[in-house]
Amino acid sequence: MRFVKAVTSPDSPDFLPVPERIAVFDNDGTLWPEQPLIQAVFLAARAKAMLREDPSWADREPAVAAAASGDFDYFHREGEAALMALVAATSAGMTDAEFNSLVDEFFATSTHPTLGKPFTGLAYQPMVEFLDLLRSEGFQVFICSGGGMDFVRRVSGPMYGIPAANVIGSSLAKEVGDADGRTAVWRLPELASFNDRAEKVKNIALHLGARPVVAGGNVRSGGDIAMLTYSSEGPGPSLQLVVNHDDPEREFAYAEADRMTLNAAEKNDFLVISIKDDWVTVFDDGPPEPYELSTAGENR
Amino acid sequence: MRFVKAVTSPDSPDFLPVPERIAVFDNDGTLWPEQPLIQAVFLAARAKAMLREDPSWADREPAVAAAASGDFDYFHREGEAALMALVAATSAGMTDAEFNSLVDEFFATSTHPTLGKPFTGLAYQPMVEFLDLLRSEGFQVFICSGGGMDFVRRVSGPMYGIPAANVIGSSLAKEVGDADGRTAVWRLPELASFNDRAEKVKNIALHLGARPVVAGGNVRSGGDIAMLTYSSEGPGPSLQLVVNHDDPEREFAYAEADRMTLNAAEKNDFLVISIKDDWVTVFDDGPPEPYELSTAGENR
Repeated sequence: MRFVKAVTSPDSPDFLPVPERIAVFDNDGTLWPEQPLIQAVFLAARAKAMLREDPSWADREPAVAAAASGDFDYFHREGEAALMALVAATSAGMTDAEFNSLVDEFFATSTHPTLGKPFTGLAYQPMVEFLDLLRSEGFQVFICSGGGMDFVRRVSGPMYGIPAANVIGSSLAKEVGDADGRTAVWRLPELASFNDRAEKVKNIALHLGARPVVAGGNVRSGGDIAMLTYSSEGPGPSLQLVVNHDDPEREFAYAEADRMTLNAAEKNDFLVISIKDDWVTVFDDGPPEPYELSTAGENR
Repeated sequence: MRFVKAVTSPDSPDFLPVPERIAVFDNDGTLWPEQPLIQAVFLAARAKAMLREDPSWADREPAVAAAASGDFDYFHREGEAALMALVAATSAGMTDAEFNSLVDEFFATSTHPTLGKPFTGLAYQPMVEFLDLLRSEGFQVFICSGGGMDFVRRVSGPMYGIPAANVIGSSLAKEVGDADGRTAVWRLPELASFNDRAEKVKNIALHLGARPVVAGGNVRSGGDIAMLTYSSEGPGPSLQLVVNHDDPEREFAYAEADRMTLNAAEKNDFLVISIKDDWVTVFDDGPPEPYELSTAGENR
């Protein structure tokens, strides 16, 4: 709040004109939980549904069989190629509109395995309040997620007030073609961008053309360090936030073996948030709101 | 105005929720003039400056020499590769921040060769009014230009009220590196995307994840037909505008030999705007406003 006041008060030496008020946030572990990764739950659910509809998938694609049976060791063993095979089978070979329908159905019918709430009820309440504060002070707020851009876009509006167009994420290659006689965007079984580490900086340049003055990430894989550092190296005032997951009671507790993100935070003056000590509320405790399908975008 | 009222009145059968109110506009010939292409003037100015600083460019890159001397036949003769060589020499091999400074300097010091105004004073006034109307009714407004994304982003805010992040355009490949010890985005001498025809639809999917309900383009090359058609094929109400340049007195008059865009307009019910007959004002006739550098983005 001290930072926001400093950059928005007209007579402050740190005042920033409205167009420079740009904030980006990672999503998994920064705006909602990542234990388990929610998109991984989606992929597993999709694999199960595919096997039910067509049992021949079991022979045709071992990654589908492994995901459907919860054999996550398979993916650790087989590495990135196996994960990409799963993404290709579950999320490509269809139009954006078809994929969006699958994602909408998932969010409308699934709940978190241990937290007992729909995934769409799991936005971190203090972060939502911070996004609201930023927007009320003229900031443009974006997500820059390692997760699938199209996946996150379906819920960014209802959960965080972030329009689909303000979501940057990993993406598949696509091509423009035809579906039922109308122009359609087809999803190809090939990664166009894995939005992690330095790629996050590159995609921020592609989507925003700006060095954000606010950036938020979290401790887990070091995937946000490049983006946080980029934000911190601008010519003027800036703020970087790092969510540290240290609350096994209300959320989860996990750390990086190499302390990479916390080390970067110490070196570069990123502000570390302790979920345990700093957040009065983690999730909005009210009754879960009925999930409303995102009306943004390509849904028919 | 009839369309905007129909999709924003709560009791209208065509009512669209706010997140679905998405509008995209081509830039060259749709929001500002394209005789000559303003980015071509920039490239020529840049080529001249480079030759002045280092005469060896004349031998090293014939495209630079041709652009500096105004030999545009060279580019017609040599085709796309020559144009790309010019873009590479003038707009790559530097950071985004350096490129942005060059663009800012160009706009601060250049005027249109025949219209006698700074380029930043050449927004089509009726289009600016329409963008304002759309925004006041909850629309998100984007540019989807064949021009360079980073070039257009420097003026989209001051000229049209469109933030840099809402500009889609052609782009160079980039890589994240270092400049003076800070994280920087470097521009590579290689095209990442030429945002024309079907590629406009693909980049709309990448940047917005949505089928726009409003799209605007113009008659010249047929480059907007795919985007306009995509917009027109949504499940609900939509509006497509095509600017026809038929006013040699106040702007320019030119047509497509094959009438491709006008034919598509007839077939798909795009609304054709005659500059001559439909626009009371083409350019704001007031005294030119002093050009203010865009404060959005990566400028240092």
